[in-house]
Amino acid sequence: MAAIIGSSRIDGNTQQLTEMALEGIEYTPIILKDKKITPIDDLRHADGGFQPVADDYEEVIDKVLEHDILIFSTPVYWYGMSGVMKNFVDRWSQSLRDSRFEFKKKMSQKKVYVVTCGGDQPKIKALPLIQQFQHIFDFMGMSFADYMIGTANAPHDIETDQQAVGDARRWNQAFSSLQ
Amino acid sequence: MAAIIGSSRIDGNTQQLTEMALEGIEYTPIILKDKKITPIDDLRHADGGFQPVADDYEEVIDKVLEHDILIFSTPVYWYGMSGVMKNFVDRWSQSLRDSRFEFKKKMSQKKVYVVTCGGDQPKIKALPLIQQFQHIFDFMGMSFADYMIGTANAPHDIETDQQAVGDARRWNQAFSSLQ
Amino acid sequence: MAAIIGSSRIDGNTQQLTEMALEGIEYTPIILKDKKITPIDDLRHADGGFQPVADDYEEVIDKVLEHDILIFSTPVYWYGMSGVMKNFVDRWSQSLRDSRFEFKKKMSQKKVYVVTCGGDQPKIKALPLIQQFQHIFDFMGMSFADYMIGTANAPHDIETDQQAVGDARRWNQAFSSLQ
Amino acid sequence: MAAIIGSSRIDGNTQQLTEMALEGIEYTPIILKDKKITPIDDLRHADGGFQPVADDYEEVIDKVLEHDILIFSTPVYWYGMSGVMKNFVDRWSQSLRDSRFEFKKKMSQKKVYVVTCGGDQPKIKALPLIQQFQHIFDFMGMSFADYMIGTANAPHDIETDQQAVGDARRWNQAFSSLQ
Repeated sequence: MAAIIGSSRIDGNTQQLTEMALEGIEYTPIILKDKKITPIDDLRHADGGFQPVADDYEEVIDKVLEHDILIFSTPVYWYGMSGVMKNFVDRWSQSLRDSRFEFKKKMSQKKVYVVTCGGDQPKIKALPLIQQFQHIFDFMGMSFADYMIGTANAPHDIETDQQAVGDARRWNQAFSSLQ
Repeated sequence: MAAIIGSSRIDGNTQQLTEMALEGIEYTPIILKDKKITPIDDLRHADGGFQPVADDYEEVIDKVLEHDILIFSTPVYWYGMSGVMKNFVDRWSQSLRDSRFEFKKKMSQKKVYVVTCGGDQPKIKALPLIQQFQHIFDFMGMSFADYMIGTANAPHDIETDQQAVGDARRWNQAFSSLQ
Repeated sequence: MAAIIGSSRIDGNTQQLTEMALEGIEYTPIILKDKKITPIDDLRHADGGFQPVADDYEEVIDKVLEHDILIFSTPVYWYGMSGVMKNFVDRWSQSLRDSRFEFKKKMSQKKVYVVTCGGDQPKIKALPLIQQFQHIFDFMGMSFADYMIGTANAPHDIETDQQAVGDARRWNQAFSSLQ
Repeated sequence: MAAIIGSSRIDGNTQQLTEMALEGIEYTPIILKDKKITPIDDLRHADGGFQPVADDYEEVIDKVLEHDILIFSTPVYWYGMSGVMKNFVDRWSQSLRDSRFEFKKKMSQKKVYVVTCGGDQPKIKALPLIQQFQHIFDFMGMSFADYMIGTANAPHDIETDQQAVGDARRWNQAFSSLQ
């Protein structure tokens, strides 16, 4: 299991909620903020196609591909996923055209979860984000197992969101039973 | 009027559709791809708050603030706005806390339009993106005047989308009458 | 071609917009308001299952099944389809279990369009209705060809919505070329 | 507190989930299926306006107005609220224009909850329904406190949806503390 953390700050609520769900579970955290992933240069239709990019994307995607269960963990940032997570997902367009690995086939075998927290009515205003993830996962053939939406703004707010804490506990039990 | 172009490639369909709508109109194009805008480092809750960032964001946002009408032009990329546009919008969190300018007040006076093109059923699958823009504009108090969604994949595909071409013509007439 | 009119008033904007799109086209109008279609009594899990209902539903659905292209025409009423249209669609649950006709198979061969008009920012607030129709059509295997959203409140308002009028003209040309 | 039950069958999962949340709480159940509420005849723009309708709507809305907290409980039926609930909400258009009571003002003081259950991926496919309720409540100025979405198809399925059961328990505690 890998948790792809898209937070724009260290130890934010989304990361904390993700860690609650994963307490005692063996997993690989992938902190996107600590990696250099440049926005995609879309050369799909250019002569020569995509070119190698000197950043950490390949290292990250290699690690992602090793895991069967992926947790996408992002704050609700401007009513969408964070820029660092979007930059990461955008680069999948390049992987899809990379003959070295069967990217779509491998990704289609993943089971995915989404964790997101926001401060402005996220149970309503994060729904477009959930729908966007659904479209992404549908396109890739990935199985969208579940999501949770926490309400939190200042650090540690999430601890008082009883629904989110309950969801995290429930996920934790389900993940524990897998190991 | 300014057109904020979030395309990840030069002369993509979204840019072309935007230019159709703006033919003969005086406007300032802002090509985000040509600017260096780093993902936000969210220091809202850190000691000292946000720190100055050595990139092109300030130059871009200064130019944006000069205009009364803004067109957000982004491909439907992984069912959302492009990473370069998301990185740009995310940085608004920093501007909101910057005492040098009344960011929210100034932005709340803008009239905004959205142009987006996608290849995979965008008239359905770009709706979460439109809803996300609505939430963004609501938060900032900006007036969301209209949007158009084009269906296009390979370069110049947009020219055959009669609805999008018709929308662009209609917008062009409305913009012309303003000048 | 059949137009299933779900308006709750005679000659409303939605009906008028639909008629613009169908000017000069041979089609069967099905005015739901003139038919008695009672809300479904969901006996799926009851002993004996669904029972015959003494109303006009069967007559209506028989007429619907005769056509290859269906236009669902409903006002945006409380941000959804009208009650008369919802009552009609809900009864499909009964048809799905009616051994007399292969309901799902026949419906899956239909090409469908949606026309809707509303008075309160329908280009944003009718998007959940469009998404609902997408889910309905996906479930039935129907092909969702296109939709249009008009902005109108008082009778004949729709005539001043240039986008809707343009869309209607474009559809009209496409429908004409089929005949 | 009143629970407005829009189920199309007796003792369905949605009703059961609602009753779990309300166990031991004093509340008024309003079973729409047992009432005769005809689809609206939209006479807003007709001479003389709306006319009295000989059905149970007035009795129902009078009872609704007596309560401060309302639970809208509807199955996900064809990816929307049930026809009986839609017919009920549609009639609000008439109440809004009824000089006998200050309908909008009274409704704007209500705190509202939504309970819905569906069988086909409701945590994704019921999101347009949640968004529709948000638009309805926004229009009326009602405060949308929370919602829950259960996954269930055959009778009593809901008992095995741990998330829904957990949500119901959490709501039950919150409601208990009010009494």
